[in-house]
Amino acid sequence: MTLVENDEEAARMIVPAVYAETGRAHLIGVTGSPGSGKSTLVNEMAKALRESGQLVGIVAVDPSSPFSGGALLGDRVRMRDLSGDKGIFIRSMASRGSLGGLARTTGNVVRLLDAVGYDTILIETVGAGQAEVDIASAAHTTLVIEAPGMGDEIQTIKAGILEIADILVVNKADRPGAERTIRALKAMLQMGAGGRQSGHVDHHGRMMVAGRLGDGDGEVGGGKWRVPVVPTVATEGEGIVELMDSVAAHQNQLKAGGGWRARELARSRQEIGQLLQAEFMVRLQETVSPTERETLIAAVAEREIDPYSAVDRLFARSNG
Amino acid sequence: MTLVENDEEAARMIVPAVYAETGRAHLIGVTGSPGSGKSTLVNEMAKALRESGQLVGIVAVDPSSPFSGGALLGDRVRMRDLSGDKGIFIRSMASRGSLGGLARTTGNVVRLLDAVGYDTILIETVGAGQAEVDIASAAHTTLVIEAPGMGDEIQTIKAGILEIADILVVNKADRPGAERTIRALKAMLQMGAGGRQSGHVDHHGRMMVAGRLGDGDGEVGGGKWRVPVVPTVATEGEGIVELMDSVAAHQNQLKAGGGWRARELARSRQEIGQLLQAEFMVRLQETVSPTERETLIAAVAEREIDPYSAVDRLFARSNG
Repeated sequence: MTLVENDEEAARMIVPAVYAETGRAHLIGVTGSPGSGKSTLVNEMAKALRESGQLVGIVAVDPSSPFSGGALLGDRVRMRDLSGDKGIFIRSMASRGSLGGLARTTGNVVRLLDAVGYDTILIETVGAGQAEVDIASAAHTTLVIEAPGMGDEIQTIKAGILEIADILVVNKADRPGAERTIRALKAMLQMGAGGRQSGHVDHHGRMMVAGRLGDGDGEVGGGKWRVPVVPTVATEGEGIVELMDSVAAHQNQLKAGGGWRARELARSRQEIGQLLQAEFMVRLQETVSPTERETLIAAVAEREIDPYSAVDRLFARSNG
Repeated sequence: MTLVENDEEAARMIVPAVYAETGRAHLIGVTGSPGSGKSTLVNEMAKALRESGQLVGIVAVDPSSPFSGGALLGDRVRMRDLSGDKGIFIRSMASRGSLGGLARTTGNVVRLLDAVGYDTILIETVGAGQAEVDIASAAHTTLVIEAPGMGDEIQTIKAGILEIADILVVNKADRPGAERTIRALKAMLQMGAGGRQSGHVDHHGRMMVAGRLGDGDGEVGGGKWRVPVVPTVATEGEGIVELMDSVAAHQNQLKAGGGWRARELARSRQEIGQLLQAEFMVRLQETVSPTERETLIAAVAEREIDPYSAVDRLFARSNG
């Protein structure tokens, strides 16, 4: 596993070899602000899935600053609780300075777990940045976790995270303000803001940025899924049964309505777009030396040449 | 101005023509959560700059959902206050479904203002996503605005926004909790978390993702700038003088210490990287038909071919 994670060259060897075996696992993205109790919730979901006999993978991605330690803390809780169960594979992935690389590497780790027979893979991310959106858009089912009293529900929603949710979870639902948060989220959903099956411009816009290859169908959900708002108290195991019912219902709807295939298509489109750009940059660096490249960048900074002409010159070099 | 904004082809004609005239304006990025009073603060900064005789541009970027209306509200306040002053140019830019495109278009509008003689250009963005980081990293001086009592100072910081700040502003400093927010931010700064001149991995990592072309120097600030925490009450005009002093001090330090040139280099590197990738995708679409492309994407989704092999095939086509 470490091989694929660390080495793009290794991924290039291994992914083609296992790719035909992938596409069976249910990929569940779980995202939400720090403090929403995300790790504990993922823990509980994993336990519930294990009880139904599934093999479960957990891939926790933390693209935030190295000093935050958020993922590590979550892991410690998790290890104490889940250790000794061979049916659960846990992997933490921290930022290595490249968010795009992180998303790609995460995808490859998920793919390996899928290929070797894991039934459900929980992909946990922190925050609401582009990396989270990319990672979430690679999942079949995306859960967005909120908690009451964080004071910024509306802000979080504005930042675009609501558009990627298939299921909204209000964790810590025994806290004051939980009812208010639930009501606010339901109101937002009724305004037509939620759910990616609505083909939201922003969500698909982002996919286009990453993929750039197509004019993907807005109807990736393949039907009329209504995004539920599920209250949970993960520390007490409350609401987990209801949550897993929603997850199963979403999976069924995806498979019945053609949404599963639509998401695989969207994911393939996005990945091909990313790999194309990465490969293009590798090839460019083979034909243009670092000195040449830095000289051109300096000339642009000094206004001796404009950036469009600089790019034309690089293209001429790489084809010559 | 509308020409450059709407049409990538027009940008390709116009940017080379004016590029030699750019590079003089002081570009100030202003970012922060909704509710931090950012627009009012930008207003006050613009007025202060006008009083010192400068031509001032304001470019407000709102990449959030179309229904939010945040930027529009800020504009209405602004228009009432600043209208009639020909020395201030105001432009709002909303998302058109492509965040990468938005950052590029914003850069071109800023460039035109720079070329025609605007002395300072305030670039205002909402939130803490990748687009904001990209836009902020194109500025010489970046202000991050916080407000007390938003309950999520630490979260915002964790999301990486602190790393891009040259100046931290605690607006609404007359509210309860302001002292606590200021202390928390100062403590974070002392932990060594703040300021991009420290060459923070994450910030530069993101620049690498966007630019991918170099191994840029970590010391883009060109020295030992200490990120100040400036309290303001924008609605009362309080703290604006101190804030503008900090802005001027940062500009002076950049120019004296070589940081100005370092940021121009970083910006050129990033822009060349983005234009290269955009141009590559345009060229690819010229050689590979939509049908061909969609067939290949479907084959990847069906596991008939793996994504790496699909990309190799596309490259073979585009070179043949």
